[in-house]
Amino acid sequence: MAIDVALQLELENLYSRYASLLDDGPLRDWPDLFAQECLYLVIPRVNYDRGLPLAIIRCESRGMLVDRVRATQETIMHEPRYLRHHITNVRVVAAAAQRIEVTAHFSVIEVLPDELPRILCVGRYIDVVQRRNDGALEFKEKRCVYDSVLVPNTIVYPV
Amino acid sequence: MAIDVALQLELENLYSRYASLLDDGPLRDWPDLFAQECLYLVIPRVNYDRGLPLAIIRCESRGMLVDRVRATQETIMHEPRYLRHHITNVRVVAAAAQRIEVTAHFSVIEVLPDELPRILCVGRYIDVVQRRNDGALEFKEKRCVYDSVLVPNTIVYPV
Amino acid sequence: MAIDVALQLELENLYSRYASLLDDGPLRDWPDLFAQECLYLVIPRVNYDRGLPLAIIRCESRGMLVDRVRATQETIMHEPRYLRHHITNVRVVAAAAQRIEVTAHFSVIEVLPDELPRILCVGRYIDVVQRRNDGALEFKEKRCVYDSVLVPNTIVYPV
Repeated sequence: MAIDVALQLELENLYSRYASLLDDGPLRDWPDLFAQECLYLVIPRVNYDRGLPLAIIRCESRGMLVDRVRATQETIMHEPRYLRHHITNVRVVAAAAQRIEVTAHFSVIEVLPDELPRILCVGRYIDVVQRRNDGALEFKEKRCVYDSVLVPNTIVYPV
Repeated sequence: MAIDVALQLELENLYSRYASLLDDGPLRDWPDLFAQECLYLVIPRVNYDRGLPLAIIRCESRGMLVDRVRATQETIMHEPRYLRHHITNVRVVAAAAQRIEVTAHFSVIEVLPDELPRILCVGRYIDVVQRRNDGALEFKEKRCVYDSVLVPNTIVYPV
Repeated sequence: MAIDVALQLELENLYSRYASLLDDGPLRDWPDLFAQECLYLVIPRVNYDRGLPLAIIRCESRGMLVDRVRATQETIMHEPRYLRHHITNVRVVAAAAQRIEVTAHFSVIEVLPDELPRILCVGRYIDVVQRRNDGALEFKEKRCVYDSVLVPNTIVYPV
């Protein structure tokens, strides 16, 4: 498949903004990267591979993502921490006019006060991206498939 | 050196497919990224830097890579695990018609059941890439130079 | 903001050379990536976010960077180690003729003899890049904002 240079770099830019909003904020702008009607899943690989639908986070609209962010910031009790995403190997696996299928690898490193950084989770994104009327790209579907079997109880923020 | 935009993105796509096949499979397709006559080495940095040829894995043809994959899947006894590669900083250091010299950084994160992810090894690829008759890129030489002195006895899968 | 394809790949190449010089050397060439009059800071996120100027490393010219490298190689006592950078999500946040503002995520993994690799620090670069008369890009300002609260006493090499 020939590589669409402009599209590839637009996609990488989308993932960079995604990572930046999650790690450096403002987190409240993160849902803006999604379509109004979207699907956002955080799902263990073992379930994904077996076709089991059970996810640890499931949001079915941008509104639910907004709620999720609000809960993270206002409601959920947790120790302060920083996250740092690395998103690599962004790759178009299929591209139709309004359905660009993209995969990428991610790692999320967690930094707690007075501790060395540690890897919270790693995995891959299996996403569908589409173009808005204004030309910008947005996520229509995002599946965060993490490799761990262990579910970290510290998955507080979005992946 | 001026950057060849199309070549750069083709190379990054090659490394992304490489990472994807190793981590998410099918692993049996991984040797297809190499030339029939190729060199694949996994070598500690301390040896590489001193010009010592001793490598912990050495394959000299695509056929040997196929055997390696088969051994990994059928023969070697080991606990189930997932790997996750991040390949970054892909850079052309020399480009002739049929010999593109490329370096990249890699990390391999290992996920065992019931454990948090840990870094298995990090290092750099020192590679030679060439173009097939059909226009696709393939690895002619790949040296996986890992920084650790300690040899992880868990290097089961290709790096 | 439309993406300047050539600029994006030039910047990624600059960061790749930066990572390569730090990890694989020669370290003495690393200051050449900076302007003669430059700013290089390694600063904890908590200080950066509060506008506090206190940094653990502060260099205000290429000459100071050269001194820093010399100190690292000749003066400072420390156990031998390897570092491996991953620099991802390179993104232009503002681009004027002579002031390109760029952010990127970094992780630095440390490898000590006889130990498994561990994450030394993670964070983001907040940089200003400019173009030399010969057309090459160079760092005018580089802020290495690391997420840890804990200051690793092993930050010996530049980040």
